[in-house]
Formats: sequence, C-alpha cells, structure tokens
Amino acid sequence: MDRETLAARLREVLPPEDVVDDEEALRPYAGDALTAYRQQPRVVVLPRSIEQVQQVMALCSAEGVPVVARGAGTGLSGGALPHEAGVLLVLARMNRILELDPVGRIARLEPGVRNLAISEAAAPHGLYYAPDPSSQIACSIGGNVAENSGGVHCLKYGLTVHNLLGVKLVTVDGELLELGGAALDSPGLDLLALVTGSEGLLGVVVEVTVRLLPVAASVQVLLAAFDSVAAAGDAVSAVISRGILPAGMEMMDRLAIEAAEDFVGAGYPRDAAAILLCELDGEPEEVAAQVERVTEILRAAGAGDIRAASDPAERARLWAGRKAAFPAVGRIAPDYYCMDGTIPRRHLAEVLTGIGRLSEEFDLAVANVFHAGDGNLHPLILYDANQPGQLQRAEDFGARILELCVAVGGTITGEHGVGIEKIDQMCVQFTALELERFHGLKAAFDPAGLLNPGKAVPTLARCAELGGMHVHGGRLPHPELERF
Amino acid sequence: MDRETLAARLREVLPPEDVVDDEEALRPYAGDALTAYRQQPRVVVLPRSIEQVQQVMALCSAEGVPVVARGAGTGLSGGALPHEAGVLLVLARMNRILELDPVGRIARLEPGVRNLAISEAAAPHGLYYAPDPSSQIACSIGGNVAENSGGVHCLKYGLTVHNLLGVKLVTVDGELLELGGAALDSPGLDLLALVTGSEGLLGVVVEVTVRLLPVAASVQVLLAAFDSVAAAGDAVSAVISRGILPAGMEMMDRLAIEAAEDFVGAGYPRDAAAILLCELDGEPEEVAAQVERVTEILRAAGAGDIRAASDPAERARLWAGRKAAFPAVGRIAPDYYCMDGTIPRRHLAEVLTGIGRLSEEFDLAVANVFHAGDGNLHPLILYDANQPGQLQRAEDFGARILELCVAVGGTITGEHGVGIEKIDQMCVQFTALELERFHGLKAAFDPAGLLNPGKAVPTLARCAELGGMHVHGGRLPHPELERF
Repeated sequence: MDRETLAARLREVLPPEDVVDDEEALRPYAGDALTAYRQQPRVVVLPRSIEQVQQVMALCSAEGVPVVARGAGTGLSGGALPHEAGVLLVLARMNRILELDPVGRIARLEPGVRNLAISEAAAPHGLYYAPDPSSQIACSIGGNVAENSGGVHCLKYGLTVHNLLGVKLVTVDGELLELGGAALDSPGLDLLALVTGSEGLLGVVVEVTVRLLPVAASVQVLLAAFDSVAAAGDAVSAVISRGILPAGMEMMDRLAIEAAEDFVGAGYPRDAAAILLCELDGEPEEVAAQVERVTEILRAAGAGDIRAASDPAERARLWAGRKAAFPAVGRIAPDYYCMDGTIPRRHLAEVLTGIGRLSEEFDLAVANVFHAGDGNLHPLILYDANQPGQLQRAEDFGARILELCVAVGGTITGEHGVGIEKIDQMCVQFTALELERFHGLKAAFDPAGLLNPGKAVPTLARCAELGGMHVHGGRLPHPELERF
Repeated sequence: MDRETLAARLREVLPPEDVVDDEEALRPYAGDALTAYRQQPRVVVLPRSIEQVQQVMALCSAEGVPVVARGAGTGLSGGALPHEAGVLLVLARMNRILELDPVGRIARLEPGVRNLAISEAAAPHGLYYAPDPSSQIACSIGGNVAENSGGVHCLKYGLTVHNLLGVKLVTVDGELLELGGAALDSPGLDLLALVTGSEGLLGVVVEVTVRLLPVAASVQVLLAAFDSVAAAGDAVSAVISRGILPAGMEMMDRLAIEAAEDFVGAGYPRDAAAILLCELDGEPEEVAAQVERVTEILRAAGAGDIRAASDPAERARLWAGRKAAFPAVGRIAPDYYCMDGTIPRRHLAEVLTGIGRLSEEFDLAVANVFHAGDGNLHPLILYDANQPGQLQRAEDFGARILELCVAVGGTITGEHGVGIEKIDQMCVQFTALELERFHGLKAAFDPAGLLNPGKAVPTLARCAELGGMHVHGGRLPHPELERF
C-alpha cells in the first residue's frame, strides 16, 4: 500500500496528528541505538490507548501491512528498525502508571513508562523495580519486556521475566490477550514467559504488571584489584560458589579502567589488570557479615587492593566509573562496537584470555566492562570507521567472540537481543530443528509474518546459505580455546 | 493398532522384557495419584536411554499411536492417566544422576531421578535442590518439569521453572531438542519456560539440568496462633508487604490443627482458629533479626501465642504436623478431595471466609492446609463416597472454590496441574482466544496431537458445551465474594 493511502486509512482510526507520513518528520524514527542500520518506515503512528493499537493492528492485518512496534528506541540490536513497507507503532505516548499498589507490591504500567520512572514512583513507599538496564533513564518497560532486559542487579534479582506478573498483548489481528496475572503460578502453557524476550514477533505489549521489591536497608560496595583478568574471572566464580549472591558483580579490564579514570576519576587503581565491583545488600547485620566473607574469598583468589566504600558518596563514585564506562571508552577511540554474549561463569577466565588472543589476531583493541556475576560479557571493540576495512574487521572480530561464547556452552546475547544484528549468529546457536520450532510458534501467533519481519529468528534458507556453522554444547572446535 | 502388533513392533526397538503387554502386569500402570480415574494403556514401555525413547517416539509417530509419558505417578490431577489406545512411556528406569558439579552448583539428571535423591546427593557439598513437593520422596524430576512443581519453599526459592537450567526433550517424531543451558539468558523464544509445566503436551523430557543452592547456615521456625482464619490470612500479607521473604509460610485451620494433633502431637494450640508456621533462613545474624521483626509484625496482626522452635528437634516436630496434615485429615473422614487454587495473597482472608460459607452451603466440612505465603490454597473437602450424592457434592464444592479463586484474579491450579481433573475449569480461566493460542503452540510441537491427548488444554468445543463460563480478572459476579 502506498504511503498516502496507508496514512489516510490510519487517519480513519487515529487522530490525524497521531499519524506521521511527512518525509522530514519520519527521519527521527529511522532506527534505534544500533545506529549503523537506518530505514525509514512507510508511516509512523503514535497511539494513546489499547483500543487504538487494536484498531491499527486490525487494519494492518487486513491489508497485509508489516508492523514494527517500538518503545524508546534504545535497543542495541536493531530490533526496532522499521520496515520499509510497514507501519512503525510508537508506544511512547502510552506512558501512564496505571496503578501502584504498595501493599501488593505491584505496579501496572502502560508500555511507554520509562524503566527508571517506575522506581521513582515506588520510592516514597520504600520500593523499587529491580531490572536496571544501563539505558534505564530512557528505555521503556514495553521494550524491556520485548528484550527481556537485564542490568547490574539481575544477578540477584533476575531478568525482566523474573520480575513480571502479567502482560496485555494485542495480537496481529487486533485482539487483546491477558497473559499471567497476580497469582504465583498459572495453568496452561506459559505464554507470559514465551512473550517475554520475543522481540516483537508475537504481538504488541500494551500493558505490563511488574513486581516491586523493598529497597534494601543496607548496601555496601567492595572494589578489588587483580593483576590479571583470568584471576578476576576466577574470583567471581569463587564468591558465587561459596553461596554468596551479591546484588551486582561487575568487572572492568585495564583499558576500561583507564578510560573511566580519565573521564570521571572514580578512584580506580590504574595499575590493576582488572577490577571487580561487588555490591552487597540486605539487613545491616547480614551485609556486614557478607562483606567480611567476600573480602576473605577475594583475598584468597589473589586480589591485591580491596576497598569498601565507606559512605554513600564513595559508593556513588565507585559506581559512576562503571556507569560511565561506555561513553568513557567512546572518548579513546573514534568508534566502538559493543558485543553481548553470555557464558557459564566458570569459563570467564578462559574466554577473557581467548578474547585477548583474538584482539591480537585482528589487531584491534578491546575493552571489557561487564556483568561478571552473570557471565554476561560486553567486550567493546575499538575501531575507526574512517580507516578502510576496520569496520569489517571489528564485525568479524565480534562474530568470533560470539562463536567463542557458544563453544563454551554460552549464548550469543545476554540482554541486548538478536534483532537484525545477530540474526546470522542464531544459525550458530540453534539447530534447524530448534529454528523450526521457533517458526512454528511464530506461526501460531502471526501466520502471515507481519510482526517485526526479518528480525530475531532467521529463516532456514538464510542459515543454509551461511553454511553448516551450527554448534551445540561446546562441540565446535575453536582455536581460541585450548580445551576444545 | 492392536495390542499384540504394537507390542511386537516395540520389541523390535526395545529389549522384550522392557515392553509390557500382559493384562495383569499392566494393571499397576492404570493411573496416577488421582485415583478416581483408571485406564489401562495398550502397552507400557520402560526405556533405559534417550535413544530408546527416540525410537519409541519415531515408531509411535509413524503409526499414529498416542503416547503418555509418566514419571513416578504421584501426580494429583490425572496428567499421567494412560490412553486406552496408546503407549505409556514410563521413565522410572532412567534414574541416574549424570553429573553433580559442586563448583558450578549444577546437577544433570535423567528424568526418573527422585526429587529428594537430588538433595541427598548434593548434601555432602552443602547444597540442595530447592523445590520440594510433598511427594518428594517418590516424585521424579521429569514429572516435576512437566507439572512445574512447587512446595513449601517455593515462596522464597521459586517453582521448578525458576530452578531449571536446561532440558533435553524428545519430540513427537523422535528428534532430540536441547532447551536452555548453563548461561543465564538465551536468545530466541523461551522454549524452556514453555515446556516447563506443559504436562507432556509438547515432548518427552529425557534429561534435566537444575541449579543447586547452598544449604542455609541457620534456620528458625515460628508458630503463631490466631483466633480467625481471616486474621491469619491478613498476617501473611503483612509479613510479606514489610519486605520479609520467609523460606516458607504455611497455614492450617482448626480442623487441620486438630487432625494433625490427634495424629502426630506436634504441639499445636488446639484452641486456635488458625496457625501460621513461618520458616526463616540465612546467615545466623540475619535470621535472628528477621525472627524479631516477624514476631513484631505477627503480634501487631493479632497473633496470640507466638513460639520459636528452640532446637532442631522442636523445629522438626512443628513441621511434622504440617507434613502429616493430609494423612491426618484422611483419618477423620472416609474420603477427602484436595483442591489446589492460587490467589493473590491480599485476597486470602476473603477467599477463606468464602470457602467457609460454601462449606455451609454444601454441608461438607473442609480443612485448610496450605502454602499461605504463595497464596496457594489446598482445601481438603471431607466426604463419604459411600453416602449417595456426596462425591458429586464434593466435586461441585471444589469447582465453586476454583471459580472463587479465578474471580479474585487467581488461578485454578498452583502446583498440581490441570491434567484431566481441571480441564473444564480451564474454560473458566481462559478465553477462546487464549485457548486458540495454546492449540497453536501445541500444533507447532505435535501437529497430530499424539502426546498426552485430552489433557491440560480443553478443546473449544468442550468449553462451548459447558456454556459461557469464562471470567477474567475478577469480572465474574461471585456470590461468595461481597466485593464483586
């Protein structure tokens, strides 16, 4: 359907000003935070109610028009990249907090509510919403559901899926489904978990009910310095295998430490090869006991300098370095490419060593800043897009890192999603049989394939073209890993 | 296919003694713990390896023979009831612990491993497997996955789905899928969560990887007595809304208290209308602080007698009453019917009051013994099957209780599954649109409908015959609830 006709039809169900079809006005919507990819949608719509979303979907479904739903557009894998022939459904205006029940510890939200706004609204009741992606100032809860977002605190408090109670979903043909609810368990198949992290393939999230947690009475942060990344990696496993579950456990390597120090002066030791930031929370007695035990374990694991933040200001300063790490790295190189793989924690040391070897092979520096407790890596590959061949080399390097993750039993994404960025690596992660199941499930929700086409799950033909790259459970021989 | 031919074909892929087709030998397999329903299968097979399961499935798939998989047969909803024309796939012989990694805190198990055997094997390492259904001595991990089993400790430590890392699944046509893995998050659709609790509709669980937890350093149990069930219900909400997460929080009403006292002499106060058992675990300092806070909160909520178990022997005695409650109730009535609904905690008081009113209406006594912290009710309806009409009255009473659960935003099952027992209540719980999605997902895994046919998800025709009973989110007017 051409732009003019489509916009006219959409203006029959939405106020005219909520349908955008002007070439200039469409420009800001041409992509998300994976800025290397841009595509203008045919039309943008900005609904204000569930009913309007239903009407838009019913219309698009009847006319066979593809639809890409989008929240704040902070996604890093291109999941909200528009479709050239489709409607971009922007949910940013549906941003009301519909209910906040401090006794039931529940918040019911429109999809456009910003992640941080939930915790701000809950704060007067001593509550907060746990998943805290780095983009939490801007990113919205609907997008968090679509990506199953994580954050610093998901080691202890879980991913989005673990903090969700229910979702209202508009189907491709405009009907409304209610998934989950306020009770702990639900009969039937677990549609709520299926929809969480489904990257817009199954429906449009139009309402979200989340669990709120009490703010911990006491919080402490430890900073520990190590003389190798491998030692720091092993220290992470040591803490957790001793039964301690820190609220967050983050690692930064030397390049990241230096960049952060230059940028915000967090007080990190510049001579360390790696640092760990370990946050412990709970009742004061419990936290004091844990600080003591963790200090012992880190010392035994080879930590040199170990420091506890003595007051809230120092704690904030220690975290400031971590939170500013990405922009800090951005200052030391013209461009960087952020990868996102997850591995079983016990392989941290060997995978970090492997990334170091790949860095030499590709002759590109890499800074590591990541959720170590979760085994969720974020290598930042530094390159210069103006140097011929460097972008390609960075992308090849990134792909090799992801294959390394899969080879040790890990996955190609922790919290950033597949989108279009990692669709080829899905062929590495999954067998044809597994991909067929994904397609079967997709067909049960969206038989015509109108929802976010071309994202998240590759066609079998695409994987076949890439060649037989599949590995599973560490069976791929991988030169960076001595043990395989 | 007749019994003789089917058995002969199965003996081509299994050792002859592992295929049971003798009428007498089939008898023990005719049902599970929902003993009101019995059905002999055509043939029973007892495979010993994944490959054998694959061969059985490939054969049955090719011949269009229905298959019901079964673990220990302890299920309470008839999920493992055989199909008269089908194969009963008994996984009890696949009962090896394949791997127990105390550093990674992971156990890899064949499906027939008993729930308690996991914790026993992990105990020397100071670890255990958290979900603890009452049947844990007998029930097996494969069945736990199929039912998404809970237990006393799932308030703090989650249901089976929250403690699973991966599952190997044989598909209806005999192929092997690996779902999940050792990393925290996984790209693609969440097949692991979809399969957990799917009651044998999607495939056969042939291997399970679970997370192990460290045994708590300190455990305390509080017993609090109340002069009404409503007050006890409100006390549960009060504790949890203050940010305390007990390891378990169980409630028993007067009839259950008396039965348990008569049976095991646990030391419960016979004059109480309800008691709460509240277990707190963690580091010793943390537990001591929590005991103090919980005692205060319970006191403020109207508890009379509050007692802390002073030593492990007294703690064991307090739990013994709770654990023996079902058989204890069995001693005071010829028969009982155990229901299993889950409600949002804040509705505990009103639903318990509603159940009391229904008890008068149906003129049948009811004992309440349940996971109060989770809002997971287990009303035991007492009746005498030898009195004409009483069984029917008990079933009608049970159905009304489940509708009451749905009316307050709850569900028709907490941990016992739908099976055949609650298939009609699924029409109350879900809309036709939602049931259609279930059927679509089922078709993606099992297009011919050979896996556990007739269980868990009703056909739309069946729901239509029952009439328009659907409610959602508390919109059904319900006479037992003043507020609706």
